[in-house]
Amino acid sequence: MTFDVGIFGASGYTGGELVRLLARHPKARIAFVTSERYAGRPLSEVFPHLGALPELICRPLTDFTASVECDVAFCALPHLTSMDAVPELLDQGAKVVDLSADFRLRDAEVFRTWYGEEHRAEDLLESAVYGLPELGNRDAIRKARLIANPGCYPTSILLALAPLLKENVIERESLVIDSKSGVSGAGRSAAQGSLFSEVAEGFRAYKTTGHRHTPEIEQELSLLAGAPVRVRFSPHLIPQSRGILSTCYVRPRLPLTQKEWRELLATHYQHEPFVQVLPIGHYPSTNQVRGSNHAVLAVALDERTGWLVVMSVIDNLVKGASGQAVQNMNLLMGVEESAGLEQLPLFP
Amino acid sequence: MTFDVGIFGASGYTGGELVRLLARHPKARIAFVTSERYAGRPLSEVFPHLGALPELICRPLTDFTASVECDVAFCALPHLTSMDAVPELLDQGAKVVDLSADFRLRDAEVFRTWYGEEHRAEDLLESAVYGLPELGNRDAIRKARLIANPGCYPTSILLALAPLLKENVIERESLVIDSKSGVSGAGRSAAQGSLFSEVAEGFRAYKTTGHRHTPEIEQELSLLAGAPVRVRFSPHLIPQSRGILSTCYVRPRLPLTQKEWRELLATHYQHEPFVQVLPIGHYPSTNQVRGSNHAVLAVALDERTGWLVVMSVIDNLVKGASGQAVQNMNLLMGVEESAGLEQLPLFP
Amino acid sequence: MTFDVGIFGASGYTGGELVRLLARHPKARIAFVTSERYAGRPLSEVFPHLGALPELICRPLTDFTASVECDVAFCALPHLTSMDAVPELLDQGAKVVDLSADFRLRDAEVFRTWYGEEHRAEDLLESAVYGLPELGNRDAIRKARLIANPGCYPTSILLALAPLLKENVIERESLVIDSKSGVSGAGRSAAQGSLFSEVAEGFRAYKTTGHRHTPEIEQELSLLAGAPVRVRFSPHLIPQSRGILSTCYVRPRLPLTQKEWRELLATHYQHEPFVQVLPIGHYPSTNQVRGSNHAVLAVALDERTGWLVVMSVIDNLVKGASGQAVQNMNLLMGVEESAGLEQLPLFP
Amino acid sequence: MTFDVGIFGASGYTGGELVRLLARHPKARIAFVTSERYAGRPLSEVFPHLGALPELICRPLTDFTASVECDVAFCALPHLTSMDAVPELLDQGAKVVDLSADFRLRDAEVFRTWYGEEHRAEDLLESAVYGLPELGNRDAIRKARLIANPGCYPTSILLALAPLLKENVIERESLVIDSKSGVSGAGRSAAQGSLFSEVAEGFRAYKTTGHRHTPEIEQELSLLAGAPVRVRFSPHLIPQSRGILSTCYVRPRLPLTQKEWRELLATHYQHEPFVQVLPIGHYPSTNQVRGSNHAVLAVALDERTGWLVVMSVIDNLVKGASGQAVQNMNLLMGVEESAGLEQLPLFP
Repeated sequence: MTFDVGIFGASGYTGGELVRLLARHPKARIAFVTSERYAGRPLSEVFPHLGALPELICRPLTDFTASVECDVAFCALPHLTSMDAVPELLDQGAKVVDLSADFRLRDAEVFRTWYGEEHRAEDLLESAVYGLPELGNRDAIRKARLIANPGCYPTSILLALAPLLKENVIERESLVIDSKSGVSGAGRSAAQGSLFSEVAEGFRAYKTTGHRHTPEIEQELSLLAGAPVRVRFSPHLIPQSRGILSTCYVRPRLPLTQKEWRELLATHYQHEPFVQVLPIGHYPSTNQVRGSNHAVLAVALDERTGWLVVMSVIDNLVKGASGQAVQNMNLLMGVEESAGLEQLPLFP
Repeated sequence: MTFDVGIFGASGYTGGELVRLLARHPKARIAFVTSERYAGRPLSEVFPHLGALPELICRPLTDFTASVECDVAFCALPHLTSMDAVPELLDQGAKVVDLSADFRLRDAEVFRTWYGEEHRAEDLLESAVYGLPELGNRDAIRKARLIANPGCYPTSILLALAPLLKENVIERESLVIDSKSGVSGAGRSAAQGSLFSEVAEGFRAYKTTGHRHTPEIEQELSLLAGAPVRVRFSPHLIPQSRGILSTCYVRPRLPLTQKEWRELLATHYQHEPFVQVLPIGHYPSTNQVRGSNHAVLAVALDERTGWLVVMSVIDNLVKGASGQAVQNMNLLMGVEESAGLEQLPLFP
Repeated sequence: MTFDVGIFGASGYTGGELVRLLARHPKARIAFVTSERYAGRPLSEVFPHLGALPELICRPLTDFTASVECDVAFCALPHLTSMDAVPELLDQGAKVVDLSADFRLRDAEVFRTWYGEEHRAEDLLESAVYGLPELGNRDAIRKARLIANPGCYPTSILLALAPLLKENVIERESLVIDSKSGVSGAGRSAAQGSLFSEVAEGFRAYKTTGHRHTPEIEQELSLLAGAPVRVRFSPHLIPQSRGILSTCYVRPRLPLTQKEWRELLATHYQHEPFVQVLPIGHYPSTNQVRGSNHAVLAVALDERTGWLVVMSVIDNLVKGASGQAVQNMNLLMGVEESAGLEQLPLFP
Repeated sequence: MTFDVGIFGASGYTGGELVRLLARHPKARIAFVTSERYAGRPLSEVFPHLGALPELICRPLTDFTASVECDVAFCALPHLTSMDAVPELLDQGAKVVDLSADFRLRDAEVFRTWYGEEHRAEDLLESAVYGLPELGNRDAIRKARLIANPGCYPTSILLALAPLLKENVIERESLVIDSKSGVSGAGRSAAQGSLFSEVAEGFRAYKTTGHRHTPEIEQELSLLAGAPVRVRFSPHLIPQSRGILSTCYVRPRLPLTQKEWRELLATHYQHEPFVQVLPIGHYPSTNQVRGSNHAVLAVALDERTGWLVVMSVIDNLVKGASGQAVQNMNLLMGVEESAGLEQLPLFP
């Protein structure tokens, strides 16, 4: 009763994280991993921390798009590359969890605007399912052939705001979202801006207008609200490897107390295994979720100014990428949703 | 033509930073340093990086309040302690630059509300001058006997917003300020929350409502605007030692272009030696100002949502504390405003 | 077929790590945790990353020494405290894994010299078993009532040198060991020297002569060599939370090639699930083992000078403390040695 | 009475550091900076922390080798590139301080062995002066036309061992040197191994045998000893930007006490402005020298094993590169040796 998975693009951080999680999954078996760059070499050379898995050898991508040997294919390929590989994988009969941004936006026109290229697999956009189970679309995920695994920033923000927009208790305008991410979100490619000496002691803003996660956030918030939502989204880079903290500023439509706002969120997520809402007066830290698939939320009401602040933390590589992908795979394959994701966070 | 300075409370980070700057100041001479805790011991034991200054021995505070041997006294004592020492120092004839929060708020009632104690030197509040020269009150600083040296968060925020409120070009409501600070802002006292293992990989929110810098920010912004201003102020802790980045979200009252907003700030600060406004498309990083008295600002206009974003970075221990104190001292003593503050930032 | 464990001193880093590992152990059940300081409060307040375990409430130590409700008691109490609690726990019939240094030295006189106090449970020293299974004493561990869990530095060093001393292929004199540890080794107590701002960018030497792990290292190396061994042991502090890297300099007694030295180690550990020996030309990094119970070794022979260099890395809180304790528990209770310890390292 | 300097290769970390120091030097004026990669662009784009120097525009290297407009040329070019530029610069009449390794080794054969290429300016090797003033060759430096600025590791090690070898009080064999460096030593080129996520929490060994600084260390130690010296030199990478700590293990030839060893070093360096020897029982930390041209030494004698340990810390970019280059320039130009280097270390 096990099944086979393949990991396309295993040499990036999300690829390595998929291997870490799936190698210890009770039902999945890693059938193969691919890496163009390291084809033919052991994955343990690419990722020395995976030295306990000497049997995994990187294969070139081309081997597999023609003849897929897996039940579920994870695509951890770069944006604009995934959309070329996914159609072939689906044709071979695999279910696909795509970690790129290529199938997250439903509107090909919006894709073109933000990614600067025509979408080359536009016909798949409609059937792709946005894989954030806590938004309430588990049935769609279970039946999907292609899962668009959400972006890291969007995951942190949607978990914070979904209950409020769904229940129509905050204004849809004036959403201000100030997010901060660890540098692993920039990937493992050698880039001067990601060097240790550039990042350490160097908290910074970047892409203050125009970050590509903006349309993804707005698309999903609008669906939840049933009406157009626009967000002021500012990303920042934290001198740490993992973790996202999003601070969301919203205007309440109801005169609830701080405690009631906290209860609203807690009740909404009471049956969710991966979402925790902190007590009033506690604030989240990224080291509460490091290495785990958990999201932690907190609420603060500023009675002086009327702003409600909702904060969330996730590990960008787990709940923000590979952990969520495994969670989606579990739903796709009909196994326990938290299978392989029970690890507690690593602290310190 | 040199003058003598004394540093009260030299064993904290702002005290150490005062020594670093003043020991190389062309006109000031460090007459003495005090530390209750390390009284009798060389300052170079307290701060090994000051090994080149073996002659500085920590004296107890009590030695000096009775008989001050300096022209300018820097008080780097804790909040609620400074207000007991300052009156004595003034009585002895010294000019005082106080780095605590004790003389920043003009209204003793507001002080009581936020600090939980009666002010014990209430009569000095009126004559204390808020020492942020870039706000345009250099004359008052020059003539002052007591300078209330601004807080680190307020400095970063006031520099970003002063031109806009002074010229009445943004709404006074809906100010959302999301600030991030390095951990040296919490001081050198041993506290579990400041341990390396708690802070590293642990970006976090704290005091989301109710940080004590809030009334200071509002007082000064209101003075600039000529009308009451309230701010939604959220501080966060960055896993790095130094630096503050404040991201300020404001609503324009005029339909300026991004470039015009940038020019407005650049023009406002064109004669300021310590303020730089970045070109459009550039975003600030705390490592641009590390160890220096500079502030760097940047502007981004989000045309999609109408929000204007103003960002600023400072080194919290320099422009946010000790550097600004030296700048104020220079004005007080009639020497070049940038004397002793010419050092370029240290990067990486 | 599960069994109950109790964790004494759960509020330190090794205590938290025991909880992380044991909460997901297939056979062990955490019956209780103790903390004098946080008695009565949920452990998730002490360690927010354990928010998924709200049922664990800290009990005071005194509750339990009188009436132990567990099969295995983990003592994560401070040195010199453990030796008072352990006898009582044994009297109650529990097996004990002690993570302190109190039962590691066989000679009470040596203990007195290095720890400055009389040993108050001297009669237990003889029967305590030093719990480093890879040294080859698994049978003794299985039959023990009291396990002295090794220190973090000694674990890293013994794994590197045991095969060489056991087979008598290096000189017993001239051992130079230069070790580097992450700051979590200093524990969670608030201390100025462990503050983020003191540690970041502040690699340093400490206790260059006289570190208390020295006699532990020498005792075990001497037992392996069958003759007295002395070591020049220098610890250093790395600006990171977890991980130890030990660089050991030894003089060969045999003219082996680099490859043969590597083979010697690889062969020695070929059946060990937690020890990996890197290929020639690869060097270990602490991030290869972070969060896991693995040790990674490497060898380099300097033909120019004749020195052989053996390097090892472990996670000081896992293989250097809590993971090794669980490994010992597994042996004690007759379950699979790697049960609960299968997690792969977390990288980045 | 000022003079002009040019900086060749200004876009690397040592180049940026030269600019930081020279822009505030009382006698030197930066006439130009070069960067092939950023030719035509302001240096403040390359290094945002140099925003206060908007007038510096990067020129291409080729502009200047033909017609040098400076009294002193600093070559911060890569190894194997410098040796092509230096002869031309000398021909133009400039004095040259070369920060590369190209002119440090006196023996072209040794150069070939370690750098894998023929030396293309072999005739200059004899007249090049190794620029470590504390070794006692100030006269030669003053009269030189070409200064070979020492490597960072060699500087830290030579300062620690020079007095002992010069006075022939330690064995020349059995030198074990375990060095640790911040990652800025690897330069600013984008390389996967220097990414924040690879370096943070990832202390590691590298090039354990065969680091190219080995022959430089041995050459200078041998000159000091008047007889061949070989060293066992192991470099390691610290997760921090700046700083080197070298731990040197040597065998005494004299039965001195720890205090006497300390005095020997202190006396040797008593007139050196940039070298400090710590009291017994104090150990150095890299954050004692960060941003400054100081070296801090400490001594520990292990009476149990007979090993003497000498430790040193420097800032690899200052005393280990650009600060030392400025110190050499000061000697070359007959100005105060510490001119422009008075800055105290930045801590935290």
